[in-house]
Amino acid sequence: MRSEKYPSELLEQAVDAISSLPGVGEKSALRLALHLLRQPVDNVRHFTDSIRNLRENVKYCRTCMMISDDEECAICRDGSRDHNTICVVENVRDVMSIEATGQYHGVYHVLGGKISPIDGVGPSDLKIVELKNRVAALTQTAGAENLEVILALSGDVEGETTSFYIFRQIAGFGVKVSALARGLGFGDDLEYADQLTLGRSIVNRQVFKP
Amino acid sequence: MRSEKYPSELLEQAVDAISSLPGVGEKSALRLALHLLRQPVDNVRHFTDSIRNLRENVKYCRTCMMISDDEECAICRDGSRDHNTICVVENVRDVMSIEATGQYHGVYHVLGGKISPIDGVGPSDLKIVELKNRVAALTQTAGAENLEVILALSGDVEGETTSFYIFRQIAGFGVKVSALARGLGFGDDLEYADQLTLGRSIVNRQVFKP
Repeated sequence: MRSEKYPSELLEQAVDAISSLPGVGEKSALRLALHLLRQPVDNVRHFTDSIRNLRENVKYCRTCMMISDDEECAICRDGSRDHNTICVVENVRDVMSIEATGQYHGVYHVLGGKISPIDGVGPSDLKIVELKNRVAALTQTAGAENLEVILALSGDVEGETTSFYIFRQIAGFGVKVSALARGLGFGDDLEYADQLTLGRSIVNRQVFKP
Repeated sequence: MRSEKYPSELLEQAVDAISSLPGVGEKSALRLALHLLRQPVDNVRHFTDSIRNLRENVKYCRTCMMISDDEECAICRDGSRDHNTICVVENVRDVMSIEATGQYHGVYHVLGGKISPIDGVGPSDLKIVELKNRVAALTQTAGAENLEVILALSGDVEGETTSFYIFRQIAGFGVKVSALARGLGFGDDLEYADQLTLGRSIVNRQVFKP
């Protein structure tokens, strides 16, 4: 039996569905449902079709596991990029963030998350075996001394754990393994920096380049 | 040609669609699209189906224009309510808000907005003719002296304009026309009340009931 809170079962079902999205409460969901109700039928159909299409037809790159329209993503297909430098990231958004900087010209490996026992995510839920196989294959063709794996995971406990786990898996190949530089952000105020970041920034201080 | 910002056209289309929702920026839209991508196919299908179903199959009550699962809404069908007291509101959410108070036992008339020349909304875009016809019919059956129309529109210029327009349309029938009480909210601090509200609260002061 449905509650008497909503004047229509269809409205209640739509509000329930929309409020299942992260960060969308019941009030916002109702507002969005009533907004969609005011749009032309074709617009709403386009809206739902694009979401369904994304979920049902999206592909993942067979090499780096990035979202892609083809079997291999545009980055992996790009011959001008350095295919011997692999940046390991948690998710699709991380690739987009690094690409947006325009500072990186290697390729990626998307893990699909980080090791987090509390969320029930173990190493086997991530694309770590695929990374290991990829590094193994590249070692054969390009030589371990020419390869670099950049661990670009988040700086929290789960990220550190994942980095360490991956390091142990691939260290045996003799490839160079690096991690993102940590320190104060450009424009950061010393006063508001956390102790750990500030401490590391002093220890890992760099040659001043004016 | 699509931008190179997104790794997939399907993702870009879904982000475009989701960011067309009010209050949802491109970053949130991307976050929601990637969230949906991680859900089981059946969940996403249920999500899109409930939205499409709402838009394509929702009905509006033939009497009060409220969203409804049937030709006539549950409130208009309810014989225990006072059908000679009509509360005129802008939209569906207003009905839900007033119903949630549990203080009103009459029926409603949903205008579908308020007169707002700047947004291109004129009287003919609202269900004002329907209200006039409804009042005219009730005057015949119940008698004008037994009817009350409550103008429960918002207190802004557009709401006031709409109230005044409706008043002129139905005043000729001789029915009682009332408006929501305006004044300080319960628990409001005098210090933070706006001048207009505070001024009206003094002028329209009520007998103290301890």
